[in-house]
Amino acid sequence: MQRDFAIGHGTGNDFVILPDDTWDPTPSTVRALCDRRTGIGGDGILRVVRLDGEWFMDYRNADGSLAEMCGNGARVFARYLLESGLEERTSGEFLTRAGQVAYRVLPDGAIAVTMSAPVIGTHVIVRVGDREWAGDAVFAPNPHAVVEVSDLADAGDLLGAPGIPPDVFPEGANIEFVRVDAPGRVSMRVFERGVGETMSCGTGAVAVAAAHAAEYGIALCDGVLVEVPGGLLTVRALGAESVALEGPAVLVAHGQLAADWIDANP
Amino acid sequence: MQRDFAIGHGTGNDFVILPDDTWDPTPSTVRALCDRRTGIGGDGILRVVRLDGEWFMDYRNADGSLAEMCGNGARVFARYLLESGLEERTSGEFLTRAGQVAYRVLPDGAIAVTMSAPVIGTHVIVRVGDREWAGDAVFAPNPHAVVEVSDLADAGDLLGAPGIPPDVFPEGANIEFVRVDAPGRVSMRVFERGVGETMSCGTGAVAVAAAHAAEYGIALCDGVLVEVPGGLLTVRALGAESVALEGPAVLVAHGQLAADWIDANP
Repeated sequence: MQRDFAIGHGTGNDFVILPDDTWDPTPSTVRALCDRRTGIGGDGILRVVRLDGEWFMDYRNADGSLAEMCGNGARVFARYLLESGLEERTSGEFLTRAGQVAYRVLPDGAIAVTMSAPVIGTHVIVRVGDREWAGDAVFAPNPHAVVEVSDLADAGDLLGAPGIPPDVFPEGANIEFVRVDAPGRVSMRVFERGVGETMSCGTGAVAVAAAHAAEYGIALCDGVLVEVPGGLLTVRALGAESVALEGPAVLVAHGQLAADWIDANP
Repeated sequence: MQRDFAIGHGTGNDFVILPDDTWDPTPSTVRALCDRRTGIGGDGILRVVRLDGEWFMDYRNADGSLAEMCGNGARVFARYLLESGLEERTSGEFLTRAGQVAYRVLPDGAIAVTMSAPVIGTHVIVRVGDREWAGDAVFAPNPHAVVEVSDLADAGDLLGAPGIPPDVFPEGANIEFVRVDAPGRVSMRVFERGVGETMSCGTGAVAVAAAHAAEYGIALCDGVLVEVPGGLLTVRALGAESVALEGPAVLVAHGQLAADWIDANP
């Protein structure tokens, strides 16, 4: 049988949305859906699941594995709930594997979601080729290495993973290169572990904003603008425990997967 | 307003199919549609146009430019005509900018389309780093440099364009690296000019099959199997003037583009 889907993205992090929660695709089918040539293509899958009277964002990575949370995915998930009419309130909550997330539609149409406040850890050295920089370990709560550079091109073509200290990051980390454009406004590039350089990373933007605010004595509750290759995000502290990730979330299309394609990708 | 689309691929060459010929997207919209992160994603667009009682494949490259012909695109176009019920005959013809193409559904469900018979030109030297190989210029009719290697890994990671003689190829060429698996069966990698290494190339497979048949004294009318990274193609001579490109053509999904997305990508 055919299955419904939608396509959405937030600052270039893109997702295949599956609104029919009676369909639970296998990891192999998730990989096939996320294949950019022979499937729909995406960084991950957002299953829209009804659970005890609430919406649950069942996020899967493109490799078929489960993931706790994805900040840009959560913003696209909220957009889908609203555009499809599943949710009418312009602010509300939904569930993720990392707990409850609150969303809010901002006056300009952007969508904000709540995420854990990051924790800034030790100083670390990041290496690319024969260059090295001192930066910060930041846990959002997934691990990040954040380094300030004077020019984003200094990081080179980022075809391979930068070097980071394995004692601080035993499971690896995402690495963000940050250029300060003004106090409270930065631009970044991100190398995601296991993936490579990407257009955007929600937790990366949160980690970068927190490190910038700490370094420059900026109140994160006023918001830090973070330009990623795929667009502009704002990170804003909401008390001590959480931050809001704000930015565009776009629905591109909706449709039906061909039954033959599903049968061929079990 | 929303617009209909479909997604299809042939051995990993993927296309956004636009069945509504009242919509003629601008080059900018074509680029947005083909963007793999913020659009639908594809190597090109196949507009399904009704012209003087015939179907016309209006093919656009992902960069928004017009293209004469695309062999894998033509196979996907035929699949779309049949699956959508626009065409009921399992063999027939449609128009392209390169002239009329005949299609045929094979007993195993694969689709064959006719293409120009390629012309084998002069010997050429192809260079990657400090390695070089002697090969053949082949015009199908677009330019190709075909070189036989003992191991497809010999071509390296192909992140940059191999060196080819500019006097033979003033406008560049696609470069195919070919390993002979048996007489009449080869495997290839392809570096497409202006794109990089890809999963498949229809004219590349045709060029490779013709060069292999000539080199090994094989009758191309019996068919040469060409394994590309995205699957298996067969190239078969049909008389002196044309060849058939045979292989799988898959419809992945169909749907509607969001009106807001179209408005945002004029």
